[in-house]
Amino acid sequence: MPAINLGIDLKVLAEAENSSASLATTQVGDYTKLQTVLDFAKTVDVITFDHEHVPLEILRALEDSGVSVQPPSKALAHAQNKLVMRKALQEIGAPNPIWKEVSTPGELDSFIAEHGPEVIVKTPIGGYDGKGVRVVSSSEQVGDWLASDNLAKLGGSLLVEQKVNFKRELAQLSARNPSGEFKFWPVVETRQKNGVCSEVLAPAPSVSDELVQQSSDIAELISKSLGVTGNLAVEMFETADGKLLVNELAMRPHNSGHFSIEGSITSQFEQHLRAVLDLPLGDTTLASKAVMVNLLGVSNEVDFVENYQSVMKQFPTAKLHSYGKSPRIGRKLGHITVVDSSQEKALTTAVAARAQVLGVH
Amino acid sequence: MPAINLGIDLKVLAEAENSSASLATTQVGDYTKLQTVLDFAKTVDVITFDHEHVPLEILRALEDSGVSVQPPSKALAHAQNKLVMRKALQEIGAPNPIWKEVSTPGELDSFIAEHGPEVIVKTPIGGYDGKGVRVVSSSEQVGDWLASDNLAKLGGSLLVEQKVNFKRELAQLSARNPSGEFKFWPVVETRQKNGVCSEVLAPAPSVSDELVQQSSDIAELISKSLGVTGNLAVEMFETADGKLLVNELAMRPHNSGHFSIEGSITSQFEQHLRAVLDLPLGDTTLASKAVMVNLLGVSNEVDFVENYQSVMKQFPTAKLHSYGKSPRIGRKLGHITVVDSSQEKALTTAVAARAQVLGVH
Repeated sequence: MPAINLGIDLKVLAEAENSSASLATTQVGDYTKLQTVLDFAKTVDVITFDHEHVPLEILRALEDSGVSVQPPSKALAHAQNKLVMRKALQEIGAPNPIWKEVSTPGELDSFIAEHGPEVIVKTPIGGYDGKGVRVVSSSEQVGDWLASDNLAKLGGSLLVEQKVNFKRELAQLSARNPSGEFKFWPVVETRQKNGVCSEVLAPAPSVSDELVQQSSDIAELISKSLGVTGNLAVEMFETADGKLLVNELAMRPHNSGHFSIEGSITSQFEQHLRAVLDLPLGDTTLASKAVMVNLLGVSNEVDFVENYQSVMKQFPTAKLHSYGKSPRIGRKLGHITVVDSSQEKALTTAVAARAQVLGVH
Repeated sequence: MPAINLGIDLKVLAEAENSSASLATTQVGDYTKLQTVLDFAKTVDVITFDHEHVPLEILRALEDSGVSVQPPSKALAHAQNKLVMRKALQEIGAPNPIWKEVSTPGELDSFIAEHGPEVIVKTPIGGYDGKGVRVVSSSEQVGDWLASDNLAKLGGSLLVEQKVNFKRELAQLSARNPSGEFKFWPVVETRQKNGVCSEVLAPAPSVSDELVQQSSDIAELISKSLGVTGNLAVEMFETADGKLLVNELAMRPHNSGHFSIEGSITSQFEQHLRAVLDLPLGDTTLASKAVMVNLLGVSNEVDFVENYQSVMKQFPTAKLHSYGKSPRIGRKLGHITVVDSSQEKALTTAVAARAQVLGVH
């Protein structure tokens, strides 16, 4: 949508005919096939992404052939591989939880002995929304991942992290363009259910000026040090004793930033486009307090828009966003944003509207 | 864009391949050809419009064949024909300026003698943005329109109105769905240059509660009495002595309502869709004070986006809207909206950003 407003000719290489991007899709093809991606690249000035799963060797081949890839492969590597990320964050001095690279049950069990009783084990690549992540108290609980044939597929090792005693989760969204301009939105609070983002409160309520500063400093450090271009979402834990620890990175429009469509002067989608095209960045002031709630499928048959009319009637301030996906239990099918000068009221309205639209009370 | 968010399958019958609607265009054809429009109608549930030039006989034929046309022909007739409008407004008691239907120089000159020295003559159909409107002090100045062959083409008569001594122009945007739900946005001030809208201030500054009430009452009266569905824009004069007089009507998303994209909880484009589909209407509270300025072409060759980057750099709060049209002097090529808690600041920024983007200082 911002591409239309800005008069930018957006081309989309989509993986399927009937994807959410169908209206903007100019080509359907496999993003893991080099020739497909190279041919597509010839039709555009800049390549960017809405997920981080394009293989690094494809990105590097694009760059070698002179294509402008934003974010570049050297940056995106950190969003693709959690071990690469942990190592880099450690090097640049960004706050990590205690972590270790492990490839044997013995290594994992000794980490558990020191930092347990429970720890978090993650596959370095391919995980998202709680997939590829397990809370374990013994290496046996990831015996399948550690089996040698499987481990090879997962990259040869796993990431283990302390289970952080956190007060809440925060996300810091920012953007940077290749010329080096950097802008950030106010830090937001993200609430998860079963490892999946459920609600986002923008701005995060009850944050000190010091925490706001710390949060944007972390984003700026990461963005500049790793050479990120486009959006950067830094998911963080706020620990019980008030420290910030980086949990995950994403380099694209991110679930934690959907509030910005209505809630900010510049939406994350507009900003990402401006950033990857090396245009000056837009103002990131909050237009209003905002709450975004995800609409996860509650059925494999019924679309969430079944209760659409009554939601519109009862909640005239709720902004519905459908992604045009076929329904599936647990799938992100859309979201609702409510802006209000009272964030509490926005949250109550958004949560009630979600219950109504999903038909779960 | 709101159709995408709401999961509404929008189909567009466009008059040309490369129109502003090209991304959403599903069919290119002539909207004055009955068969073309009837065939298109078979592919949709509801027909609506982004201009009022589809001939009434086509709309009636659609309705006769069972198509849901919103707004219906009986309502749209008042936006197509200014004489039909004046008569209807008089009947329902909405405030008209002094007016008369004239078809001879003598009739016109006697109106001038009584209400002149200057009066406004309008062709009943086909006029917009100052076209089909002349300020005259003698019937000779519309001698061409009154020539019998021409007059027949124009509908057989002309509309003459007193030249209202107005303080400023206002516009009242509202929407109504077929079930009768009616919602209005705060009244806005519109500033014209050479008969074309140049700036819109939302809300209109310095309006009394009484005037706000009057303005929405007029919109509601017109909307309900004429059976309008979808958006209704009522352009009005605020006279030197504080009265409101209706100038023009439009029944579609309207230039005076573009501020609502960023400035209101519900944009006029979303509302029009909801209204014509008989969905409950969205909240019309202003999200912020807003100023919209039109971008009119200053050259037949150079697109306004030439100065795009420097505008983005100097005015990070300016929201650019390109319509994807080829440049032509005086053509509406896009607009800029600035929201700000200070309307004065929004106006200054928007006007400066416009000067910069158009390269006129």
